[in-house]
Amino acid sequence: MIAERIEALRREMRRRKIDMYIVPTSDFHESEYVGDYFKARKYITGFTGSAGTAVITLAEAGLWTDGRYFIQAEKELEGTPVALYRMGEEGVPTVRGYVEQNLGQGGCLGFDGRVVNAKDGAEYEQIARKRQGSIHVDEDLVGLIWQGRPELPGHPAYLLEEAYAGESAQAKLKKLREKMKEQKAGIHILTSLYDIAWLFNIRGGDIRHVPVVLSFAAITMEESIWFVRPEVLDDALRAYCQENNIMLRPYEAIYEYAAQIPVGKAVLLDAKTVNYRIFHSLPEEVEVVQADNPTEWMKSVKNETEISNMRNAHVKDGVAFTKFMYWLKSNIGKTEITEMSASDYLENCRRAQDLFVDLSFDTISAYGANAAMMHYTATPESDTKLEPKGFLLVDSGGHYLDGSTDITRTIALGALSGEEKFHFTTVCRSNLNLAAAKFLHGCSGLNLDILSRGPLWDLGLDYKCGTGHGIGYLLNVHEGPNGFRWKIVPERNDCCVLEEGMVTTDEPGLYLEGKYGIRTENELLCKKAEKNEYGQFMEFETITYAPIDLDAILPEEMTARERKLLNDYHKTVYAKLAPYLSAEEREWLAEYTREI
Amino acid sequence: MIAERIEALRREMRRRKIDMYIVPTSDFHESEYVGDYFKARKYITGFTGSAGTAVITLAEAGLWTDGRYFIQAEKELEGTPVALYRMGEEGVPTVRGYVEQNLGQGGCLGFDGRVVNAKDGAEYEQIARKRQGSIHVDEDLVGLIWQGRPELPGHPAYLLEEAYAGESAQAKLKKLREKMKEQKAGIHILTSLYDIAWLFNIRGGDIRHVPVVLSFAAITMEESIWFVRPEVLDDALRAYCQENNIMLRPYEAIYEYAAQIPVGKAVLLDAKTVNYRIFHSLPEEVEVVQADNPTEWMKSVKNETEISNMRNAHVKDGVAFTKFMYWLKSNIGKTEITEMSASDYLENCRRAQDLFVDLSFDTISAYGANAAMMHYTATPESDTKLEPKGFLLVDSGGHYLDGSTDITRTIALGALSGEEKFHFTTVCRSNLNLAAAKFLHGCSGLNLDILSRGPLWDLGLDYKCGTGHGIGYLLNVHEGPNGFRWKIVPERNDCCVLEEGMVTTDEPGLYLEGKYGIRTENELLCKKAEKNEYGQFMEFETITYAPIDLDAILPEEMTARERKLLNDYHKTVYAKLAPYLSAEEREWLAEYTREI
Repeated sequence: MIAERIEALRREMRRRKIDMYIVPTSDFHESEYVGDYFKARKYITGFTGSAGTAVITLAEAGLWTDGRYFIQAEKELEGTPVALYRMGEEGVPTVRGYVEQNLGQGGCLGFDGRVVNAKDGAEYEQIARKRQGSIHVDEDLVGLIWQGRPELPGHPAYLLEEAYAGESAQAKLKKLREKMKEQKAGIHILTSLYDIAWLFNIRGGDIRHVPVVLSFAAITMEESIWFVRPEVLDDALRAYCQENNIMLRPYEAIYEYAAQIPVGKAVLLDAKTVNYRIFHSLPEEVEVVQADNPTEWMKSVKNETEISNMRNAHVKDGVAFTKFMYWLKSNIGKTEITEMSASDYLENCRRAQDLFVDLSFDTISAYGANAAMMHYTATPESDTKLEPKGFLLVDSGGHYLDGSTDITRTIALGALSGEEKFHFTTVCRSNLNLAAAKFLHGCSGLNLDILSRGPLWDLGLDYKCGTGHGIGYLLNVHEGPNGFRWKIVPERNDCCVLEEGMVTTDEPGLYLEGKYGIRTENELLCKKAEKNEYGQFMEFETITYAPIDLDAILPEEMTARERKLLNDYHKTVYAKLAPYLSAEEREWLAEYTREI
Repeated sequence: MIAERIEALRREMRRRKIDMYIVPTSDFHESEYVGDYFKARKYITGFTGSAGTAVITLAEAGLWTDGRYFIQAEKELEGTPVALYRMGEEGVPTVRGYVEQNLGQGGCLGFDGRVVNAKDGAEYEQIARKRQGSIHVDEDLVGLIWQGRPELPGHPAYLLEEAYAGESAQAKLKKLREKMKEQKAGIHILTSLYDIAWLFNIRGGDIRHVPVVLSFAAITMEESIWFVRPEVLDDALRAYCQENNIMLRPYEAIYEYAAQIPVGKAVLLDAKTVNYRIFHSLPEEVEVVQADNPTEWMKSVKNETEISNMRNAHVKDGVAFTKFMYWLKSNIGKTEITEMSASDYLENCRRAQDLFVDLSFDTISAYGANAAMMHYTATPESDTKLEPKGFLLVDSGGHYLDGSTDITRTIALGALSGEEKFHFTTVCRSNLNLAAAKFLHGCSGLNLDILSRGPLWDLGLDYKCGTGHGIGYLLNVHEGPNGFRWKIVPERNDCCVLEEGMVTTDEPGLYLEGKYGIRTENELLCKKAEKNEYGQFMEFETITYAPIDLDAILPEEMTARERKLLNDYHKTVYAKLAPYLSAEEREWLAEYTREI
């Protein structure tokens, strides 16, 4: 099937004399997760992971993806003509490197200009130019051959009340305009769906588990324009827009708007998120100020209302998770439970919570060796029965009106090997050490990452991904510019200085192919500690509340400090959650948060 | 006296209509330490520290220095008209910021173009241009008023045999020319005295405790030119130069050489070290490739001969230090010992060692509160008598033909307070934790710094400097591009990826003004550990051997792992040094390296 699709694509390529066609994983907004309409890369390769780029030439087909997906991609690409390129491994070319090496003299490079960002698009254009070649960017070739392509999503949009958002759109726009002035920009084109939703205090449902509205925005000193499909707006929202001086224009009108920007107004835009077609619609004489969207940093610093809401959401989410964990521990080996039935049970626990909106991403419920695939999602075909032994890794979260959660627990279902316990304990130490960090203001995740990774590195082990990411408020659970990692990834803006109010996940793990996967993930709220002659010290508050499975802990492998950190954490978990549990659950939680 | 000198300088400034004059701490080579001839900044401000910049206007005089020197500078500037600007502190302008704010419209900015690097010079020029002002850079104004200025140094140069250098100048030049080709450069102007000495395998003595030869070099694909004063060369060295095709030209001829470079040859140079006058002597049409000197990285990766020599030098140095420590511990309270007599004793212990050349820097022997000044040097006026209580901090090292050392020990002279012991133990933990790091290749000192700083940060404490620096081989003890720090300092190239063969100091400390200073410094050799599916792991070997004073250690404040690290280290120290000690010293060392 994949071979046929690739051949169909090649027919279209030949017809247009295109030698190489790039199919990234993207919508028109560089969203991390994309709606089904946009899953062209999945359609053409069969690889279902959330990140990857396909490059098709007339002779070869390749898929580039990162360490989270190596095992999964290998399986899914088996039997297709698509070769896997493991990004970051020694000797593996980057997508760009491959294009440079393989686009022949005078060759034609094609891609849909709406799904490639302006920065990458310009780089591809330059490669083609070096080869005296050309680019073909105004057509969506996969779209032409895609039979039964899903519709563009059109979920009703809604207002996120100030009681939840903590700040009015007016106030946010005012601050944004100040940032625009600093950058000497008269117009700001904003195409990141998360940033638009945050700025206007509007939510929708156009990406699975990401409550955004497919739309573009343009902000000037006087006006705000929202390019959005009229059918997703109701009267209340129209009125809200009018009150807030947000003018409405059709979704596709952004290209025309960009083309008509008058010379003399500098346009602030982030070439990493604005798509190539918009960028190239701008008149050549218009000055472009290339910078990160100011809203990216602004929305990462949670305000007091958001923080107090998030703490509350995490208590509810912790109650849901603890009820699930109690049920799982009590029923394993007695009733039949599978990866999917377990995640269904957990979903129901979350749905029962106040202000629940949606899951915040597809639950990863991965048993045994399945958990070694970092972003495995159980399907009816892969769904595995849980046995009363080994580990179930559950990475899950909920969107609530009062905030989003992202938590991972690895749960012992019965007997564990000594190695499993030792590795679980090591990952727990990694998690605790990062959470306990105290540091001077000015540190980024690059400085702190080794606190988490160190206990694994000491054993010659590692996890092939960052240690943590920023988290949105009823938005994408992966959000910049904060994060924890040890090496800058140029295309990711996630190594900023950690500021009071930023929330970042702390999720070290260990993934042993064919054996098991372990991850323990909490969210850390960055706060100010003392300020003295050495500077402003910072620290974290863990705002995720759920037991870390003591059945898998070897206390003797922890330092006294680490045991104290775990005991203190468990004390907090019990105090926060106990009031909302049944007597049996409470008794169970007391046992599972006992001092070790 | 300082006031009079500043007034004399202002007279010269007025005569030339110069509004602001900058006096950095530099020779014509951007050396870190400078010979007496070059101490214009000290002459004009009275501040004796090794780093700092003076800016004199017709109305104001300021000195900028960094955290190491705040306390010292405050003392030394007292009673002078010079204001102290504490670099890096909140609200304190940088030198550049001050110049920008204070150079008036049409103002004239002056400095000696030979003691300002090309990068800074160009920036100053730009500031003046923005003000429609001018620059005055062809005169050394301080030189004009400086009565009794010391002579330019002219120490005899000598050859460092290959048995010590480990690689011939020919072989180094070959590698350098490959790097030049990669950069598409036909000519390389090299002005860093350390790099010239390393490249030609030549040493001298033109900077106190830094065995370099005042000279410039220019390398083309065919020839090597050494711009050096003839009087420092003997016949043997002339013959060596001839054999190695190193052509000799006078020191000052570099400016003329630069001016006559033909168009069409790209010139590789590091604008951070090449002085402004050389840079501006280049014809305007000549293409400049601005990059770090390739030799900087090359010389930081020690070859096998250098490494084996350095291990040997450190054993000798450790023997010297241990003999000193034994003497000090045995005699304190019995005979009169001062900071200076202690450092004299230590110097004699080093001089007795085989292949000793010189101290590698002025010994810091600082008792009690004096040690809170990070780079205090005892003078006859400040020399303090040691009492049988509190701490003596000794930061010292030796140059040997088989390598240079840099070691700090803080020694308990008698009774200590609980706080002193606790802080000493914390600094020791910091040192041990960094030395024990295991990490993936690709890490820089930025990633690892928190291992050292973390134990202090946990207590809301810090030290206002990097954690460690690269170390030269019979060259400057401060050498890039390796180092440990948590925040990039743009003007320092010391955050490179740590490579096998690099040697970096590990010297956390704590400095409590008016109370005491603690520092424990070892040198760490970076080595490869295992390579597996996660990548190439790296680790350190501590190559400094001397006891860390157990009299000041609180074992109960250390983790079991930290105690094991200290015990293992002490076991190595004993094994390495015992064969070279007297029976009494050996007995003493056994006690001071006992397991805790």
